[in-house]
Amino acid sequence: MEKHYKEAFEKIAEEKKERIMAAAAAEFAAKGFGTANINVIARRAGVSIGAMYNYFASKEDLFLTVIDRAYHILEGVLDQVRTAEGDIFEKLESMFRAAQKYSKRYPELNQIYLDMTSEGLAHLSRKLSGKMETISARLYKAMLAEAQDNGLVDKGIDCDVTAFFLDNLILLLQYSYTSEYFKERMKIFVGPDALENDEKVVAGLMRLVRGALGACPDGK
Amino acid sequence: MEKHYKEAFEKIAEEKKERIMAAAAAEFAAKGFGTANINVIARRAGVSIGAMYNYFASKEDLFLTVIDRAYHILEGVLDQVRTAEGDIFEKLESMFRAAQKYSKRYPELNQIYLDMTSEGLAHLSRKLSGKMETISARLYKAMLAEAQDNGLVDKGIDCDVTAFFLDNLILLLQYSYTSEYFKERMKIFVGPDALENDEKVVAGLMRLVRGALGACPDGK
Repeated sequence: MEKHYKEAFEKIAEEKKERIMAAAAAEFAAKGFGTANINVIARRAGVSIGAMYNYFASKEDLFLTVIDRAYHILEGVLDQVRTAEGDIFEKLESMFRAAQKYSKRYPELNQIYLDMTSEGLAHLSRKLSGKMETISARLYKAMLAEAQDNGLVDKGIDCDVTAFFLDNLILLLQYSYTSEYFKERMKIFVGPDALENDEKVVAGLMRLVRGALGACPDGK
Repeated sequence: MEKHYKEAFEKIAEEKKERIMAAAAAEFAAKGFGTANINVIARRAGVSIGAMYNYFASKEDLFLTVIDRAYHILEGVLDQVRTAEGDIFEKLESMFRAAQKYSKRYPELNQIYLDMTSEGLAHLSRKLSGKMETISARLYKAMLAEAQDNGLVDKGIDCDVTAFFLDNLILLLQYSYTSEYFKERMKIFVGPDALENDEKVVAGLMRLVRGALGACPDGK
């Protein structure tokens, strides 16, 4: 994996790394890449601006390091799901719950991802070259193909397109716990308790997914 | 409906209105609200900057007028679907096709919507107060309830949560024809022909939705 930080950053204590990453994520999430200020980040993390440029060549490199950290967290979650016991429906339910949990715990990382998908940051999102999407796509497709072999998922389903829509459902679920706009939208659809009533959302999603994948009552 | 333009804008020819709206949409989509330049918009639309401020009190008002126009287009599409002949599945298929068609025709309006959902524009998205979402939510919920009465959709389905996930699928479908990031993401999942092969995407989505809503082969 290409690194976007300098050697000096590798050598500092984990606690200090975390402090810098958290301050950077908060600033990028609140202001967007264009307006985010590296001086503000340095001050909030309690390091000098000179030290910051010792760790990162540019604001862009700092941003890409924050994104890589988010990917690292997401990869860990996906890996847990992949290796867990259970059939495809139990695994999908774990993913929906993980999406809720991590979106609530790291809203700023979601916000940065959301910003990155807009056209203004196309030059940055191109550098990330679909790494995360390739990992998720492969995981979903393998899960679907295996479940087709086991008779849990209808063999008539197109795994590529279905993997895409499953990821769409999870991505928009993550967004729905992130920006004010998406939080309000979820409340309009699901009800005023949408943000707290995680079970209602997961139950609805599981009903939909079980039906969608062909797990009909008679197994057809 | 609250208007965000001045009386002078109402009085100009439709063709000129369209020219200003198109130039504004292109500039906001390319640069985002913060960086978009009203002088550039005036020049591209072939009107003086003085005239622009005669039509709109501020860049924010111009932006909100562009958004209102996008809403107007979307409302027309939703209304067509609502009043069309056919059962819920035919109506949903029309919506998926409309989402593809309009996203390809007006990518800049989608891009603006995508930008608006990010936290940086929360002060603007609040002014729009979920108007569009309220209209779509009501339409989906009514369609689902009617189809439950007709026996086309499983009565055990929670209409609120299901309406939300249906709209999530459509929203992310629209995004997928809009920004570079989302286009690449769709290709990674669906295949290199994803952006051209509209039938493959609609067929996959219809299979998923038919199953999800409980239209199993045996009607259970």
